[in-house]
Amino acid sequence: MQIATPYLMFLGDVPDRLAAKTAYGIVDWRPEWCVGQTRLPGCAADLGIPDLTIAEGVGRGARTLIVGVVNAGGVLPPHWIATIVEAIEGGLDVASGLHTRLGSVPAIAEAATRHGRQLHDVRHSDQRFDTGKGTRRPGRRLLTVGTDCSVGKKYTVLALEKGMRARGLDADFRATGQTGVFISGRGVAIDAVVADFISGAVEWIAPAADPHHWDLIEGQGSLFHPSFAGVSLGLLHGAQADAFVVCHEPTRTTMRGVTHPLPSLQEVIDLTVQLGRLTNPEIRPTGIAINTQALEDGEARALLEKLAAEHGLPATDPVRFGVEGLVDRLVAEFPA
Amino acid sequence: MQIATPYLMFLGDVPDRLAAKTAYGIVDWRPEWCVGQTRLPGCAADLGIPDLTIAEGVGRGARTLIVGVVNAGGVLPPHWIATIVEAIEGGLDVASGLHTRLGSVPAIAEAATRHGRQLHDVRHSDQRFDTGKGTRRPGRRLLTVGTDCSVGKKYTVLALEKGMRARGLDADFRATGQTGVFISGRGVAIDAVVADFISGAVEWIAPAADPHHWDLIEGQGSLFHPSFAGVSLGLLHGAQADAFVVCHEPTRTTMRGVTHPLPSLQEVIDLTVQLGRLTNPEIRPTGIAINTQALEDGEARALLEKLAAEHGLPATDPVRFGVEGLVDRLVAEFPA
Repeated sequence: MQIATPYLMFLGDVPDRLAAKTAYGIVDWRPEWCVGQTRLPGCAADLGIPDLTIAEGVGRGARTLIVGVVNAGGVLPPHWIATIVEAIEGGLDVASGLHTRLGSVPAIAEAATRHGRQLHDVRHSDQRFDTGKGTRRPGRRLLTVGTDCSVGKKYTVLALEKGMRARGLDADFRATGQTGVFISGRGVAIDAVVADFISGAVEWIAPAADPHHWDLIEGQGSLFHPSFAGVSLGLLHGAQADAFVVCHEPTRTTMRGVTHPLPSLQEVIDLTVQLGRLTNPEIRPTGIAINTQALEDGEARALLEKLAAEHGLPATDPVRFGVEGLVDRLVAEFPA
Repeated sequence: MQIATPYLMFLGDVPDRLAAKTAYGIVDWRPEWCVGQTRLPGCAADLGIPDLTIAEGVGRGARTLIVGVVNAGGVLPPHWIATIVEAIEGGLDVASGLHTRLGSVPAIAEAATRHGRQLHDVRHSDQRFDTGKGTRRPGRRLLTVGTDCSVGKKYTVLALEKGMRARGLDADFRATGQTGVFISGRGVAIDAVVADFISGAVEWIAPAADPHHWDLIEGQGSLFHPSFAGVSLGLLHGAQADAFVVCHEPTRTTMRGVTHPLPSLQEVIDLTVQLGRLTNPEIRPTGIAINTQALEDGEARALLEKLAAEHGLPATDPVRFGVEGLVDRLVAEFPA
């Protein structure tokens, strides 16, 4: 899936900011791709970018209308269809993160066929993958892993991409989730891939590259999460990670959606190394990323210091304190 | 997916026995469900059951035509369509293990709609699953695990089902692969399930049951296989296995489709216990099943004795020497 940029962001009439979380993530990380937003009357989200009609968006060079919103049940509300059809008629492709396939709506499918436009359903994958082979491939790869879902794995690799590029390193974010695919304009949501092809899909997402090139792969779930550990393991094996950063949210007591307690950082480090060795015997931890949003500044700093000392690894909150320490460690461990 | 029995087996004109492997598996394990076979001119496979026309099959009570064959690329040959349509017109449902969806062939789809018959595509799943919850559920569950793919995991649970039922135990085979689904008439091929729902699908396949009831769950892949370990882990977590039997083929040197060496039986036992504890802290190995087909009788017996002594577990070749020892161990470890 390769989504043409730049984007015109379509928010429909979502009732709150949370429903447009994906769109906010795109604007946060790729402001240069977002020419403006198109909103319907009643829309309660505002991305803080220019409000444009479809025609204005096209005029500013947009190539894809992004339906970057979540609706109840992931269903496309019928009163959004006219805007999407108008976008297609105006010459835009459309990319959506809804469960409803764009092509399953006759008016949208017909317009796309008539005007030769692409429809991208980020939650669905019609791409055929090979099964993973586990054969070592050149290029360096870093994976974020976690004590749970939603602990900052995507944010951490995106911050690393920015920080590493600022230091002149050759690094690319590699998306494995829906929001990430919009942010990178490429990739596949692993949760749309059939089970047998998880590691193969990751081998495709982060393919062989120059020996000093870094792929920064968005992790998913946790090896300790009873719902998603299989996905996390397939991701780890497909990534053949040279390095990994452990992500954690310190106030959480049980893993999301289940009653299981969170594993410790050390447990995650140990199991990631143990299982990751199957496809990369050199795998090693290179840092810790903590979401300290719920902590006071002093508390946050004290926690990071403690964890860094305990594990002998740089520890940071990428949002609050940046990723300098994480990049320093990568540069030191993997010299150019 | 619930496939109506009994079956009329359709072999098309497959060029050899191997292409009809699924059909042979069904006849081996569910002869009472197979009223006969329908073959086209040139078919090189023979299930050893009566050759019947569609009308004769219907006359003998068949309710589903099983397309239990593999063709190059899993594609439905156009000259098979007429027979499938004839079956639908005769009142049969159709279940297929091909990649081509039955419903994607207009003549088949139209006939099914017209006659109100079910089409089952075992390789595809339109069923919605919840994500796995990892919550302990009543009932006993045994899972087969392996040093590799295709080492006898399905055969072992099927032999256990037979052996345990013969001893008056309440046990059901639970399919997770295509052939298994035909054999049980129910279940889902895990390789048709989207990655996020592997463990959830297994929780659905082997749901809460009477405390003394055994679900015998067909394992897939290997925790050590770089292509499929994620699937194996999701299966293990979803199964919440109380007991597991390790399956192995002793002459294999690398895992199927990759260049990785096979793990040892002890490595498989240790990792299965370590990772399986997440959803069942009581998980334990209860036996070893070896495919000794490539060994002389004396060699086979010597190997099994050696492995049994080494691991303190009953070791057998379920095909050659039965599953008595495996059942004895289960009865001893899990008294009624």
